Amino acid sequence: MIVIDWGTSSFRAYRLAEDGTVRERREAPLGILQLKGPNFAGALESQVGHWEAEDDGPVLMSGMIGSRQGWVEAPYVECPAGPADVAGHLMPVAWRERKLWIVPGLVDRTRGVPDVMRGEETQLFGVMDTLGPGRHTVCLPGTHSKWVRIEHGRIAGFRTHMTGEVFAVLKQHSILGRLMTGAADDDAAFGEGVARAGEAGGLLHHLFGVRTRGLFEEMPAASLASYLSGLLIGHELAQEADGATRVHVLGAPQLAPLYARALARAGREAVILDADAAVIGLYRLARNLPRKNV
Amino acid sequence: MIVIDWGTSSFRAYRLAEDGTVRERREAPLGILQLKGPNFAGALESQVGHWEAEDDGPVLMSGMIGSRQGWVEAPYVECPAGPADVAGHLMPVAWRERKLWIVPGLVDRTRGVPDVMRGEETQLFGVMDTLGPGRHTVCLPGTHSKWVRIEHGRIAGFRTHMTGEVFAVLKQHSILGRLMTGAADDDAAFGEGVARAGEAGGLLHHLFGVRTRGLFEEMPAASLASYLSGLLIGHELAQEADGATRVHVLGAPQLAPLYARALARAGREAVILDADAAVIGLYRLARNLPRKNV
Repeated sequence: MIVIDWGTSSFRAYRLAEDGTVRERREAPLGILQLKGPNFAGALESQVGHWEAEDDGPVLMSGMIGSRQGWVEAPYVECPAGPADVAGHLMPVAWRERKLWIVPGLVDRTRGVPDVMRGEETQLFGVMDTLGPGRHTVCLPGTHSKWVRIEHGRIAGFRTHMTGEVFAVLKQHSILGRLMTGAADDDAAFGEGVARAGEAGGLLHHLFGVRTRGLFEEMPAASLASYLSGLLIGHELAQEADGATRVHVLGAPQLAPLYARALARAGREAVILDADAAVIGLYRLARNLPRKNV
Repeated sequence: MIVIDWGTSSFRAYRLAEDGTVRERREAPLGILQLKGPNFAGALESQVGHWEAEDDGPVLMSGMIGSRQGWVEAPYVECPAGPADVAGHLMPVAWRERKLWIVPGLVDRTRGVPDVMRGEETQLFGVMDTLGPGRHTVCLPGTHSKWVRIEHGRIAGFRTHMTGEVFAVLKQHSILGRLMTGAADDDAAFGEGVARAGEAGGLLHHLFGVRTRGLFEEMPAASLASYLSGLLIGHELAQEADGATRVHVLGAPQLAPLYARALARAGREAVILDADAAVIGLYRLARNLPRKNV
């Protein structure tokens, strides 16, 4: 079978054996926002056409390919939802005189304002066996960080924080970025930002402190991006403090250690999970799909 | 005398009579970030050279013209500070074989991370008589909103929130702006944003709700900017809830009514002050300065 993790900025395809073993993989900068047209069928053809010609297994895709800006919109499935609920709502799309399938995202309507994910549900299904039965808290850090409650093998509910995107736009486009040099790689400054998030004043006030600490040379320009990162992640964690003491951190290899450090500071335990969970989740959803000519 | 409110994006000059009456005024888009070179002396010459030739009174300037990016850096004066403290630290600068004076900004070091203002102190001195003796809370909404404690005619301390700038960068550069159309002028959506700020989840989570409410068409695209504005102002106000019940709102005529509405919602009273306070404050600081040839 062929499974594809097709997001905003990247395309990752895997050719799997019947037992889920990865036989071949391809990765290309063909995210849905990078395609011209956009020509999804053409991109798929160019990447995995030769696999499909000699493989009669199902083809399943997850991620933003199922969004309004994607190939076909796969409507969100409501939480709580497990693999069976999602498998029951795979969206068919025609390609090469056959059907492909797209994994729908999830919506959590339990808190008034709806919250959504698309792609993360598949990653989460890939770690369900690792997590085991019972209740778990999983954090998927990133542009839009997700905090997920897993209950008995299903996604019970979740909350998104725009942490990564707010960091990026403030660094690139606000007055804070003007004082910054270099990457966010100063551990001590990151820790100071996390600590500051616990003080009075709120995020909008703490952000201005990134400027003043630079202005008065209390912190070198090369450390300010780390301080801002710590501040934002600290504010995110403070809102998720009522979850389990043990937090499973999934994905984003460059971010997971930062989250682990910030969690440790708050007396919580971080367990970093395999970032390649999407392919396992896709396998789990694809294995009961019909073959090409059935 | 000639007094000038010279900020990042605008230049406002006033020719005053000895009793402070405004005789003439000029306004130009010659903020310090818009000047080439930057040639501060040339800009001043072009705008008020003819006034200065026939007026032997002092020339006083306030605002970002005294910042590191301005004409000359006027070091911050520490809080608490009143008009006399600031008048004692005016920064001289040479022009046309005479001295001009620049008003220094203030720094509040009472809370660990320093906070700064530059220009607002002059506006505040302009409303001291209106406020009268005792303690007062003044809010100056804007790109960097200031919340100021006035005690017995002096600025006791203050706190800055990056509300206006965060609104602007998110609207222009984040995924939230892509769904928005039109200006932020929907009162009902603004109110919903203010109310949402009082709920659980924190700002980074509430921001993502701007996207989902647009995505699910719970709110029209033309209302989302107002909702975001209410969300940010609501979060700012929540952090300043321990101040006086009565809040004096100074400056930014398009923002003051929004702050008044959000304050009323929290059971507080907003008194909107004259936005032209800078000229009164400048007069107050300038009237004891020596004349041109003294």
